[in-house]
Amino acid sequence: MLQQATGLFIAETHTDAVTWHFTVEQMLVSGKTQYQEYQICEIPTFGKTLFLDWKIQSSLLDEHIFHECMSQPAMTVHPHPKKVAVCGGGEGATLREALKHRTVEKAVMIDIDEELVDMVKLHMPEWHQGAFEDPRTTLLHTDARKYLEENKGAGFDVVLSDLPDPLEAGPAVYLFTKEYFQACADAMSDDGVLALQAGAANMSYPYCFSSVVATLRDMRDTFPVVRPYWAIMTTFLLPWGFVLASKKHDPLELTEEEVAKRFAARGVNTRYYTPRFHESVFTLPEYLLEAIDRHGRVLTDAKPFIWGA
Amino acid sequence: MLQQATGLFIAETHTDAVTWHFTVEQMLVSGKTQYQEYQICEIPTFGKTLFLDWKIQSSLLDEHIFHECMSQPAMTVHPHPKKVAVCGGGEGATLREALKHRTVEKAVMIDIDEELVDMVKLHMPEWHQGAFEDPRTTLLHTDARKYLEENKGAGFDVVLSDLPDPLEAGPAVYLFTKEYFQACADAMSDDGVLALQAGAANMSYPYCFSSVVATLRDMRDTFPVVRPYWAIMTTFLLPWGFVLASKKHDPLELTEEEVAKRFAARGVNTRYYTPRFHESVFTLPEYLLEAIDRHGRVLTDAKPFIWGA
Amino acid sequence: MLQQATGLFIAETHTDAVTWHFTVEQMLVSGKTQYQEYQICEIPTFGKTLFLDWKIQSSLLDEHIFHECMSQPAMTVHPHPKKVAVCGGGEGATLREALKHRTVEKAVMIDIDEELVDMVKLHMPEWHQGAFEDPRTTLLHTDARKYLEENKGAGFDVVLSDLPDPLEAGPAVYLFTKEYFQACADAMSDDGVLALQAGAANMSYPYCFSSVVATLRDMRDTFPVVRPYWAIMTTFLLPWGFVLASKKHDPLELTEEEVAKRFAARGVNTRYYTPRFHESVFTLPEYLLEAIDRHGRVLTDAKPFIWGA
Amino acid sequence: MLQQATGLFIAETHTDAVTWHFTVEQMLVSGKTQYQEYQICEIPTFGKTLFLDWKIQSSLLDEHIFHECMSQPAMTVHPHPKKVAVCGGGEGATLREALKHRTVEKAVMIDIDEELVDMVKLHMPEWHQGAFEDPRTTLLHTDARKYLEENKGAGFDVVLSDLPDPLEAGPAVYLFTKEYFQACADAMSDDGVLALQAGAANMSYPYCFSSVVATLRDMRDTFPVVRPYWAIMTTFLLPWGFVLASKKHDPLELTEEEVAKRFAARGVNTRYYTPRFHESVFTLPEYLLEAIDRHGRVLTDAKPFIWGA
Repeated sequence: MLQQATGLFIAETHTDAVTWHFTVEQMLVSGKTQYQEYQICEIPTFGKTLFLDWKIQSSLLDEHIFHECMSQPAMTVHPHPKKVAVCGGGEGATLREALKHRTVEKAVMIDIDEELVDMVKLHMPEWHQGAFEDPRTTLLHTDARKYLEENKGAGFDVVLSDLPDPLEAGPAVYLFTKEYFQACADAMSDDGVLALQAGAANMSYPYCFSSVVATLRDMRDTFPVVRPYWAIMTTFLLPWGFVLASKKHDPLELTEEEVAKRFAARGVNTRYYTPRFHESVFTLPEYLLEAIDRHGRVLTDAKPFIWGA
Repeated sequence: MLQQATGLFIAETHTDAVTWHFTVEQMLVSGKTQYQEYQICEIPTFGKTLFLDWKIQSSLLDEHIFHECMSQPAMTVHPHPKKVAVCGGGEGATLREALKHRTVEKAVMIDIDEELVDMVKLHMPEWHQGAFEDPRTTLLHTDARKYLEENKGAGFDVVLSDLPDPLEAGPAVYLFTKEYFQACADAMSDDGVLALQAGAANMSYPYCFSSVVATLRDMRDTFPVVRPYWAIMTTFLLPWGFVLASKKHDPLELTEEEVAKRFAARGVNTRYYTPRFHESVFTLPEYLLEAIDRHGRVLTDAKPFIWGA
Repeated sequence: MLQQATGLFIAETHTDAVTWHFTVEQMLVSGKTQYQEYQICEIPTFGKTLFLDWKIQSSLLDEHIFHECMSQPAMTVHPHPKKVAVCGGGEGATLREALKHRTVEKAVMIDIDEELVDMVKLHMPEWHQGAFEDPRTTLLHTDARKYLEENKGAGFDVVLSDLPDPLEAGPAVYLFTKEYFQACADAMSDDGVLALQAGAANMSYPYCFSSVVATLRDMRDTFPVVRPYWAIMTTFLLPWGFVLASKKHDPLELTEEEVAKRFAARGVNTRYYTPRFHESVFTLPEYLLEAIDRHGRVLTDAKPFIWGA
Repeated sequence: MLQQATGLFIAETHTDAVTWHFTVEQMLVSGKTQYQEYQICEIPTFGKTLFLDWKIQSSLLDEHIFHECMSQPAMTVHPHPKKVAVCGGGEGATLREALKHRTVEKAVMIDIDEELVDMVKLHMPEWHQGAFEDPRTTLLHTDARKYLEENKGAGFDVVLSDLPDPLEAGPAVYLFTKEYFQACADAMSDDGVLALQAGAANMSYPYCFSSVVATLRDMRDTFPVVRPYWAIMTTFLLPWGFVLASKKHDPLELTEEEVAKRFAARGVNTRYYTPRFHESVFTLPEYLLEAIDRHGRVLTDAKPFIWGA
């Protein structure tokens, strides 16, 4: 029953408990941009997969779970989203999900890593599915925070913050802080909705997620509604955490029927975040509620969250 | 950012996509019984952990999630569980959860691997917490199926089937078949409830789970109520599937309030399967519903499920 | 002191005792030809490195050790090598070493895998160093055995058989048999010298090496002189075995001075197989002598050596 | 051909190029003494094997190679070794080799780690083979350097320094310095011989070995004869370096016949360091001679060698 390894593997260390060795069937392209190291490869069962800085980001098997959860709750809870900003979201799939809503007139995607986005355009068409060519899309390669700060009052109905985890050497440390969230709010309309990916939501490492929730809850005047939610990802080997922060609309007030109605009206189809599953996505287990209470701290530019620190 | 490994690791291969290398901080005891290879070790973050045949079984971090889900839905849905059978359940934690219900008068645990249970008694007291010494407990070391077949009409209110996955060389292949489930039913009372762990519930390997659901659904006359459910486990690196099959009582008819009332009346405390979370546990994502439809086949002694085959 | 892995690794399993995880700093090119899978990558300390079918073949750190030992003893023991055949030797480095001898007028390299040689020409110039462009070189892409069989009486002074290990699915199983060695002899001059790489020469896996020695010793009438020798390779993580089989000239009769004289006369420079080290290369430890006695069997087309079988 | 790992593995990182994953068939005993972490386990092909601080130390497959080379050159070159000191040498096998010489009247082994030696006595009898019970043996558990400094003039004919590599956190950093070698000399007889294991002798990491040679060569007045030598180890996955430093006797002046004569006279049998192989053991490849020139620096207590630094 013992067996030894032969082949090509990408090793990712999540916590001190376990390292994941992903089997690389074929390396499609690998390299280093100004901001991060990347690999695009074929993994058995998962299919085409993207790694950034040795962290699995997205695979054909379940990227739809991540990107639906990244986009759809915020898009759906807004009664008429016309103007959307996607911060980060290099694969183009968060953008793709947002554009599913026929109400959208303008979608601005701001991803600092042009070289990576160019790679994705070429090698990962299954993700963006033409979203970059949608006439409603504007693609910018600058720092998302800087863009938002320079576009106060832009009136985005929805801001989708799909950024890499705040790794020490990575580009996203200051895009998980109160100051950043305020910049999001300032660029949003009066009933705008913000959603962001907020890190692992398992028992081993709920720290980033907890602090993002705590930070947004600390901004009651800006975001009276803060709803943490989660997605059960297969390729991440753990559940993933998201947070929806809203100036007015509350997803917990949406019924299954209302979600279904909006999907139908706007031409939206989904596979994971379905009307039936809407409520479940917002129902967190006790351990996450406890983790938010115990480990959540308010993140600021002065004291940001550093992954693994 | 590149880093190489140093230390002691247990490698578990789940599917062809990924191998997990668990960090062994300290090997407490390891060996081979007549039925399986085992390791009990300390893993950082996870704490004390049991491996059987190179598959992670249980860790202090989240064994409560598994064992609560293994026991509590079935125990709770039964209005007055007096007689309980635990098939397998070597760690004694499924038994522990069942015994939390003050209504229980007799609990029979049947685990074929005496040597392993002896190890567990000695090295894993945090799991059984005295359950083996409970005066209501009878511990037997024989084949669970044989026991049930020899005890038709025994009138168990609840049968908890907490068996290892049906590995080709393992002891449990014929304890995941229609014939076995019938033997469970025959040893149960007229309103008895069966629950079993049914394997991984992720997108990579929903095959065992799907077929267990399909098999029990194919036994409509015996089990009019079949409810698949899941638990989000951190240490398993994936969600886990369970099935509740019932002659009469339906967990979907239990409200949060009723679960809370029964817990209070019977002296039950839980951390994951709480009244609030009851409904969520029974809400499966679309991919599992589809997997049941697509991959579920009726398992029989003639055509059992073999893990990985 | 415990540390976990992060990054890209190639795993090679040598025996059931140990698996080697090579750190891939950069994947230069990888793919599959008609005959084998290959990777050319940067490995820290080793530099550029070639893998074939998940076995490390050659790195910039010590390819000179392998290729000098592959070529120089046979080339040097022949008093005036004019015509040389290289069987296999895809990297072009065995050819490079042979061409160092000014006496050489014609060198024919026969490597079946054109696609791989094309890759090597492009990505591994440090190996061939222009040898493919040498006017004395003829490069053929056909089966080396077939070529030799069709060129009986060709009168090669030296045949260098630098073939991949006889893997079950690989192209070289019938190029490690008596029939192949006879084909070599038939294409050689009356005082011709054959040298071949013959597999690992450590205590864990001396089996291929032992049988190659036994096979050539069994051909006394063809090759009265059979001299096993070895090279201590760093990148292979073990010593490597070679065999020199000769119709007339015996390397054990060459003194350090004579080797030095021939090197000087022919313009040969070396770094590992030096005149001083000549004798040591032919001095095997007891365990290899014993392994030849115990494990050596005569290899024939009917009963070839299959690596790992 | 791709294959994934299942089972228990010890990972050792040698350089940044490669990590070795040893297959642990059975963990016999593992733990931590005051000085080091240890595992004694069964490895396929290697048999019983000892690891210290995640470095493979010794296996049944080829411990004789290491321990013969550790003891026999020094023991044999001395014309009449009566009094021997073994510094370190926890397994008892260096002692065992020394005691093979009937001339020995007194052997003092000084190993600081009593707990480890107790483990070895119990679990590794194949190594010591009764050496600890030999009436000529005195076993002390103190710092070897301290012992030697307190026993100036003790008149040891041979000192065998079989210490762990100078790891930063390990106990041996100051037992690879000029001051330590002087303490050895001061406790030796006028024609005493010192031998020590000096680290890896491959191309990737010849640094410790080179500096030990350079240090002893810098002590010309104390040790007029300094002879580096090596052993080709299978389990270490690389050749290993040793140094013999002698006040008078020179191993290069010993002929094969004289070695054989002394072995016969003293009742010594060996498997690797045989009379025939004596000269080969002292013949180093060019790359090691160059490494000594390039990388060798004089080690002192003020500037010791730290492995990996």
